Amino acid sequence: MKHYLSISDLKNLQEAVKEGIELKSDPFSFDQLGKRKTICLLFFNNSLRTRLSTQKAASNLGLNTMVMNFGSEGWQLEYNDGVVMDAGKSEHIREAAKVVSQYADIVAIRAFAGLIDREQDEAEVVLNGFLEHATIPVVNMESSVAHPLQALADAITLEEHKTVERPKVVLSWAPHPKALPHAVANSFINMMKLQDAEFVITNPVGYDLNPKITEGCRIVNDQEKALENANFVYVKNWSSYRDYGRVLHQNRDWMMTSEKLGGANFMHCLPVRRNVVVEDAVLDSNQSLVIDQADNRTWAAQLVLKRILKESQLELHADKK
Amino acid sequence: MKHYLSISDLKNLQEAVKEGIELKSDPFSFDQLGKRKTICLLFFNNSLRTRLSTQKAASNLGLNTMVMNFGSEGWQLEYNDGVVMDAGKSEHIREAAKVVSQYADIVAIRAFAGLIDREQDEAEVVLNGFLEHATIPVVNMESSVAHPLQALADAITLEEHKTVERPKVVLSWAPHPKALPHAVANSFINMMKLQDAEFVITNPVGYDLNPKITEGCRIVNDQEKALENANFVYVKNWSSYRDYGRVLHQNRDWMMTSEKLGGANFMHCLPVRRNVVVEDAVLDSNQSLVIDQADNRTWAAQLVLKRILKESQLELHADKK
Amino acid sequence: MKHYLSISDLKNLQEAVKEGIELKSDPFSFDQLGKRKTICLLFFNNSLRTRLSTQKAASNLGLNTMVMNFGSEGWQLEYNDGVVMDAGKSEHIREAAKVVSQYADIVAIRAFAGLIDREQDEAEVVLNGFLEHATIPVVNMESSVAHPLQALADAITLEEHKTVERPKVVLSWAPHPKALPHAVANSFINMMKLQDAEFVITNPVGYDLNPKITEGCRIVNDQEKALENANFVYVKNWSSYRDYGRVLHQNRDWMMTSEKLGGANFMHCLPVRRNVVVEDAVLDSNQSLVIDQADNRTWAAQLVLKRILKESQLELHADKK
Repeated sequence: MKHYLSISDLKNLQEAVKEGIELKSDPFSFDQLGKRKTICLLFFNNSLRTRLSTQKAASNLGLNTMVMNFGSEGWQLEYNDGVVMDAGKSEHIREAAKVVSQYADIVAIRAFAGLIDREQDEAEVVLNGFLEHATIPVVNMESSVAHPLQALADAITLEEHKTVERPKVVLSWAPHPKALPHAVANSFINMMKLQDAEFVITNPVGYDLNPKITEGCRIVNDQEKALENANFVYVKNWSSYRDYGRVLHQNRDWMMTSEKLGGANFMHCLPVRRNVVVEDAVLDSNQSLVIDQADNRTWAAQLVLKRILKESQLELHADKK
Repeated sequence: MKHYLSISDLKNLQEAVKEGIELKSDPFSFDQLGKRKTICLLFFNNSLRTRLSTQKAASNLGLNTMVMNFGSEGWQLEYNDGVVMDAGKSEHIREAAKVVSQYADIVAIRAFAGLIDREQDEAEVVLNGFLEHATIPVVNMESSVAHPLQALADAITLEEHKTVERPKVVLSWAPHPKALPHAVANSFINMMKLQDAEFVITNPVGYDLNPKITEGCRIVNDQEKALENANFVYVKNWSSYRDYGRVLHQNRDWMMTSEKLGGANFMHCLPVRRNVVVEDAVLDSNQSLVIDQADNRTWAAQLVLKRILKESQLELHADKK
Repeated sequence: MKHYLSISDLKNLQEAVKEGIELKSDPFSFDQLGKRKTICLLFFNNSLRTRLSTQKAASNLGLNTMVMNFGSEGWQLEYNDGVVMDAGKSEHIREAAKVVSQYADIVAIRAFAGLIDREQDEAEVVLNGFLEHATIPVVNMESSVAHPLQALADAITLEEHKTVERPKVVLSWAPHPKALPHAVANSFINMMKLQDAEFVITNPVGYDLNPKITEGCRIVNDQEKALENANFVYVKNWSSYRDYGRVLHQNRDWMMTSEKLGGANFMHCLPVRRNVVVEDAVLDSNQSLVIDQADNRTWAAQLVLKRILKESQLELHADKK
């Protein structure tokens, strides 16, 4: 694997999940792989799980890690070509990406959707800017439209907790006071398409996600019906895609409750607003897998970094021949 | 030692001081103890000495360190149970503490008193929130009402510099333009109660500290009288406890001077405002121990982390039997 | 080398350049030199290249690194002696510098010019404050009037790319919307004075740099004439020195273009504003050395840290005799 930008970069999801679980059982089995190599984590947005789990994964592999909050510790970047840079932006992505490539062997990027301009968000200007101009592997730590480290952690969690061959998995929209990006939901859907499962998306009218991503998925507006006989319920808020980035309503009756959940397992990427997205009783029950998902973020990141390091070793050997 | 929340967690202060001094003379004697283990330092408030000395101590023990400024790099946490989280707080301590426990073997927390609501400050919501919900050892890097790493460093400094069996130690209030917390003074007092010393607290009327903490201590409002024949004078400002968090007056005549100090050693936890809390002549004299105190922060932290790592090793062995 | 404050601390520039190039070809040749030693990077201003390259260099030498953004993670320091510190500043440089010296073996400082008070900027209060009061080696990561790590990286880049014995090097002022410091230009000039080259500075009337620094240098106000037959053109904006810290005009016709550059190599310290300081065609051509310069920041820093570590080893041995 050269880069990790979306879940499809894994090629075979099932093998990746298996490999992630192996790393979890033997975290230091590849602790020499990252020796004398450096990963640079660039945060254009805040982070808790991604920040710590990726550092932890890097450390387990023996990597040297440099963390930088680009906005507060650096400056604003220009992403458009041909611009006369006489306003607020001090450096162009063309230089920044090449420069970071001088100091690190892998660069990981977190840059959220602005949720104002759909076209610009879908262009993934930050992530793709680094991808185009960096000369080292790029890892997506959540971009405008994808969060593939989360999706891989979710796949590991599903594998560890499934008790039937072909589980029913429901992605259920939840209310939220703020407009949130589509990245987690998008990557979860893309990951579920690679699973042998009955997959249903349920959301209120007006909250359908990008039809290119949900293509081929069953979307049900009746939450109760969608949840029937579910084994796993993945709850997540997202803002409207049609009325791009808007909170159409907060619809409190879409909150997940113990009653609605029935016997299913509860999943959420965190952070989660209690008693808005999901009631306390669910999170505090044994049915909640949210901490397992958070734990699996380490093994997802470690698997991805391991594969990138392995690939770069192979390339190095090939170069030497 | 499972956690380090207050000076009393040390059990035997004299042994701890001795062990701290041993680490100082041989800093790398336990550099394998932290191998393949991670400490996460979470700062809810700014820091210089605590930030650097705890990192240094962790490095001496071979620990992997992750530092996070929770406010600016993460988001606001909710600490109350049962709340409908539809306002400014994005994550509940119940999740945050369990999540951090997935990525680290020890978590250290700095979270100051707000100095607005005494009851809330004394509830230590941040530190106790982590203590309750984390599944790993918790270290106090200064909480609302305690700063036990400072107190241990102070105990080491006293031991290194005392020239009589039973010294006279005076904790002397000082003026300051801003309202400051009681944490340093509280922990110093709690530490002094474990010492064989003549201990006197001196502060203006209205500035008596929490009577539960000063219980059994001599409090004198006449500074000159209190300082008579002192061997060590520990100077520190704190805001009023009775008129909670208020600066009643700035009383410049309580500033420590060479004349008042006489032949005693001067101590302060730093940062210190020169010519407000203490005059230049004191800080720039050989009687000042403030840099020794700062140095001993490393050995205090290293001792604490060493004991926690040792304890977790024992638990691991016990689990395996 | 005890400290690295200016390019003249290198003693012999040519040997230093050679040593830097050797480190570049064998980055881990001294990876035991920093073992059990710590460098503390203190940022009073934002940084990308300096932040990452210095961390990378430290890691290559086996150093433990602690990074602190002093303003946002700590507090404001007082640099004047004798002050009654009852306003916004919480700690004096006298304490801060001695304290940091307890936790680190080397301290590196970035603190830009304020560009308001020339005398104060030239006094280098932050850097010199640390130099005076710290008890460990001090490295300049860009101060008010000097950026010697950049200048050393530039010297390495010149050496790697020169094709004639005695190249013509032109330092050419460029327009910029904001007032920028003189540090990079100053250190480049000081470095060029140590080179066997034809060196010309070109800038508009009113933009002459500090005459003490440009003493003995040819300054030409006609850019076209200055650029004739140049081998290297180092482009950089700086604010006025005479009308201290002011942007007199933005003079777009001073922007570097392919036409002006002719066959010369283009250099800039970055970050650079495209189509203001230099047109795209130059940066995107093979004549641009800006990424090589950025790469050489690592080797410049590594050489400096290596020499400081070597020197402290020698002192240690001498102490033991």
